[in-house]
Amino acid sequence: MMLKTHHCGKLTKSDIGQEVVLNGWVQRRRDLGGVLFIDLRDRSGIVQLVFNPEFSGQALEIADKARNEYVLAVRGLVVERDPETFNPNLETGELEVRVTEIEILNTAKNPPFFIEDGIEIDESLRLKHRYLDLRRPEMQKTLMLRSKATKLIRDFLDDNGFLEIETPILTKSTPEGARDYLVPSRVHPGEFFALPQSPQIYKQLLMVGGLERYYQIARCFRDEDLRADRQPEFTQVDIETSFMSPEQLLSLMESMIAKLFRETIGYEVPTPFQRLTYAEAMDKYGSDKPDLRFGLELVTVTDLVADSDVKVFNMVAKNGGIVKALNVKGGASWSRKELDDLQPFAARYGGKGLAWITVKDGEWKGPIVKFFKPEEIAALTERLAVEEGDLLVFSADKPKVVYDVLGNLRLKIGKESGLIDESVFKFAWVVDFPMFEYDEEAKRYVAMHHPFTRPKDEDLHLFDSDPGQMRAQAYDMVLNGYEVGGGSMRIFRREVQEKMFAALGFTPEQAYEKFGFLLDAFEYGTPPHGGIALGLDRLVMLLARRSNLRETIAFPKTASATDLLMDAPSAVDGKQLEELSIRLAVKEPAAPAKA
Amino acid sequence: MMLKTHHCGKLTKSDIGQEVVLNGWVQRRRDLGGVLFIDLRDRSGIVQLVFNPEFSGQALEIADKARNEYVLAVRGLVVERDPETFNPNLETGELEVRVTEIEILNTAKNPPFFIEDGIEIDESLRLKHRYLDLRRPEMQKTLMLRSKATKLIRDFLDDNGFLEIETPILTKSTPEGARDYLVPSRVHPGEFFALPQSPQIYKQLLMVGGLERYYQIARCFRDEDLRADRQPEFTQVDIETSFMSPEQLLSLMESMIAKLFRETIGYEVPTPFQRLTYAEAMDKYGSDKPDLRFGLELVTVTDLVADSDVKVFNMVAKNGGIVKALNVKGGASWSRKELDDLQPFAARYGGKGLAWITVKDGEWKGPIVKFFKPEEIAALTERLAVEEGDLLVFSADKPKVVYDVLGNLRLKIGKESGLIDESVFKFAWVVDFPMFEYDEEAKRYVAMHHPFTRPKDEDLHLFDSDPGQMRAQAYDMVLNGYEVGGGSMRIFRREVQEKMFAALGFTPEQAYEKFGFLLDAFEYGTPPHGGIALGLDRLVMLLARRSNLRETIAFPKTASATDLLMDAPSAVDGKQLEELSIRLAVKEPAAPAKA
Repeated sequence: MMLKTHHCGKLTKSDIGQEVVLNGWVQRRRDLGGVLFIDLRDRSGIVQLVFNPEFSGQALEIADKARNEYVLAVRGLVVERDPETFNPNLETGELEVRVTEIEILNTAKNPPFFIEDGIEIDESLRLKHRYLDLRRPEMQKTLMLRSKATKLIRDFLDDNGFLEIETPILTKSTPEGARDYLVPSRVHPGEFFALPQSPQIYKQLLMVGGLERYYQIARCFRDEDLRADRQPEFTQVDIETSFMSPEQLLSLMESMIAKLFRETIGYEVPTPFQRLTYAEAMDKYGSDKPDLRFGLELVTVTDLVADSDVKVFNMVAKNGGIVKALNVKGGASWSRKELDDLQPFAARYGGKGLAWITVKDGEWKGPIVKFFKPEEIAALTERLAVEEGDLLVFSADKPKVVYDVLGNLRLKIGKESGLIDESVFKFAWVVDFPMFEYDEEAKRYVAMHHPFTRPKDEDLHLFDSDPGQMRAQAYDMVLNGYEVGGGSMRIFRREVQEKMFAALGFTPEQAYEKFGFLLDAFEYGTPPHGGIALGLDRLVMLLARRSNLRETIAFPKTASATDLLMDAPSAVDGKQLEELSIRLAVKEPAAPAKA
Repeated sequence: MMLKTHHCGKLTKSDIGQEVVLNGWVQRRRDLGGVLFIDLRDRSGIVQLVFNPEFSGQALEIADKARNEYVLAVRGLVVERDPETFNPNLETGELEVRVTEIEILNTAKNPPFFIEDGIEIDESLRLKHRYLDLRRPEMQKTLMLRSKATKLIRDFLDDNGFLEIETPILTKSTPEGARDYLVPSRVHPGEFFALPQSPQIYKQLLMVGGLERYYQIARCFRDEDLRADRQPEFTQVDIETSFMSPEQLLSLMESMIAKLFRETIGYEVPTPFQRLTYAEAMDKYGSDKPDLRFGLELVTVTDLVADSDVKVFNMVAKNGGIVKALNVKGGASWSRKELDDLQPFAARYGGKGLAWITVKDGEWKGPIVKFFKPEEIAALTERLAVEEGDLLVFSADKPKVVYDVLGNLRLKIGKESGLIDESVFKFAWVVDFPMFEYDEEAKRYVAMHHPFTRPKDEDLHLFDSDPGQMRAQAYDMVLNGYEVGGGSMRIFRREVQEKMFAALGFTPEQAYEKFGFLLDAFEYGTPPHGGIALGLDRLVMLLARRSNLRETIAFPKTASATDLLMDAPSAVDGKQLEELSIRLAVKEPAAPAKA
């Protein structure tokens, strides 16, 4: 075959007069009666080929058989087009290639969808024919961006003394909040490996091992009931360091992100990032991953309405709850239906309701207005900076519910009212997370980050008295309302780790059974260490301005954890199961449909 | 804590007079009565600390508590040592640090083995305490070399237009000769994912998808009965290209290897590599991964001895077998025991025996000499270039047995007689592999490479008549007797792939059930493509001149596929199995021991 000398999309005027060989796919074919035009596409772009009996009758004859997506090798002369036929939509739009020789390398059936951007077809059809979907320029550009981003991250970490070290995929179950994927061992009947939810323990052991700076672009696995935008396997930029302060680590990460955005999409991310404590983030935005591209902050008014005649405010305040409000500028013009829709919206996030007040023609209107005393209205006016045209929305409940309801309402209004500048990337660190959340169902504390997170030194004494008040040396990297990374300083002393396990409800025996190797390791000179993991899929999604994770992954799985292309998972031979010493225990006679 | 400003092993004379902060581990501690010396170690090396009441009485007092492997932070002044105390074994041997401030960051129990190179202890103890083993300089150097090698490979491929693209780990069982690890699906009861033995099919689909040049440092999995030096999970540099000739690909790989060896260990690998056909390699070396650092080639003498009175030669020649010989220079001085040991050696490789002749004092001696006619001796003398002091060893059998016996004998003699220059890296390509091997047990052909390998164009017609004679467009990269990589051009037309599956004994229905998606994909304009995979673990092992793969992997598994550190695999909760709709079917009451 004729081997390419040039890339279709990279031909420029300086190639005029050159003979080139191109390899690629037929994007489009136009027969002008005696003269044939073919747009040839490769990874780099498209260029127009011309077949004319004047250049080669034989080439024209062969080219005439070509259809969309045929694979061609052509030899020809690069010429400038007649200016009247310049195509401004093509990078190579002022050029064409006069073909003197052609080889059809492979034929193609008509594909089930067009190989072009912006097609609107069922995603499952795209996933089933992913090998065709991947030919579309927007998919190729995203994968190229991902490759470039990954390279930049690696280069940055390498420049900063990080070693890339691989950790096992066949490992042991560790409790990180989600279900493990298990792998039966054939050699050890009845025993199982687990796929890692993260390389957490291994990277800590690398620090015990004195490697000081580790990174890995690591595949991780969670067998969760998938929400719309989760993948059972995902990729994280996994980092761990010894002898670094949190400040040093966060600042290093800021430099990495700034370089990444600068060198991929030319965007300047200001550093240092804004920092918010978890408490501030919840207080102002009702979320630990606030979208900071717009204001519309939550304002606490508990103190102003605690004695009001609005019964629910009054009761909530007495029972340790809080009352918060959003002041939606211009919201006084909302329709009655929009206002009514606030109630089911609140319910979706566990709220009992939302009270609202509109300010129109200098007058406060709404079901609860009549219960306010004039001085309460005055105080609210001041604190909420109320003006003509405002809509005030109040939520009163336990803090968690108020945060959820108003935090989500804030996001909804932000998006729908065009408050968000979509061109902006707004990074922040959320710090000082609580060590524990109280799990009402299990009636015990669970780790907010993970069981290896180091408490703030000044909170260590609270292990015994009030773990709920302990704060962690943990930090999340937040971007435009997404958590793109999270990390912490780690416990590195055995006695602290033991207290942590005890606080989580492990007996010493259980703790040792599960993590004996780590507790033992801590006794042999473990350095102070800490790290972070960034979600690469998510980061690339935001960088590429794509709408879901699947667009950033070559072969993603569906929301039901299925590979539609390969048809995995699938049934296996009974002989394989026998070798693994397992048996099926399927309740339903037939496996459920996949879609 | 005091954060490091410098690395222990990187202090040089230019730092003299500087105040530095160091963080690291106590390598050694010597108390000279009132003055204390501590060798402090970090990833970069070791430097000597001096504690003296003249510099700080308090620091001396604290340092006095430090023991081996304690973690320290120290502040001090870099000074030149008294020339009499220069330590030529340390990079920093002309310097020391006078400590004014010290902090013990963590204590340490006495480790179960010394943290130094060249320790001779049971490997299982090292693996169980891998976090201590990793502190030893030779382990750290190997992991650093691996990280650097990986970086160089990535950079090279990136420079050459390769995109790094991740492929799934949760995928579908494919037949590549070894057992798959399976992962039960919770969401689809009774169904299983398989961990990939290689990303073979995905990388081919990426080529169908028009990505043209793909690479990935990919984790692969094989559930094999482990030989001494295999790992259940291993890493390969996985590469696939479209529109490239085999020559272009091999030459690119040669450049990559040359750069890798030059920039890691300063070794110049000559390019292009020597090329041998599979037939040549077997003929001369009895192996498809010949160690080319020495000669001692196998010589065919079938034609010379076919009519001899040596019965076994005679019979073997008549029955289509072959007779080959090694001429071991100086071997005439072998002891009787060494000669006798040839028989069990042959048996180990399936041979019935080995005939030998020594040439001493101009005379041929040995059990078979008397059966030779003078003209046969003359002919053998010429072909084998026989001289005084030689030992001739003959094997007569089916070709496979002769290759195995003499190929392995050649290696043994090469190693034991010091014929091998251990300082040399001798690369070669072995090409023109047969497409198929005949599996005597299964009574059918099996793919020598894998079922996606493209036959040589000129052999395509043999599919129907004589598949055993077909040669593949396949190539192995061989280094010092190891296969370090293998690849091929791939089939890219549906009808050829169907013929291939048929030759392997699949019915069209079975082929479509397993590989329908690939056969379908081939119909939509699949480009000519091919690729290669290099074994990264093996390559790093050879580069680092280590003796086994486990030395190149941070957390390897034992020969019985066990992680001794984490104690994986292990038993899991019945509840987990229930969720996965599987049940144990363990025959023995207890799981076997692990070791």
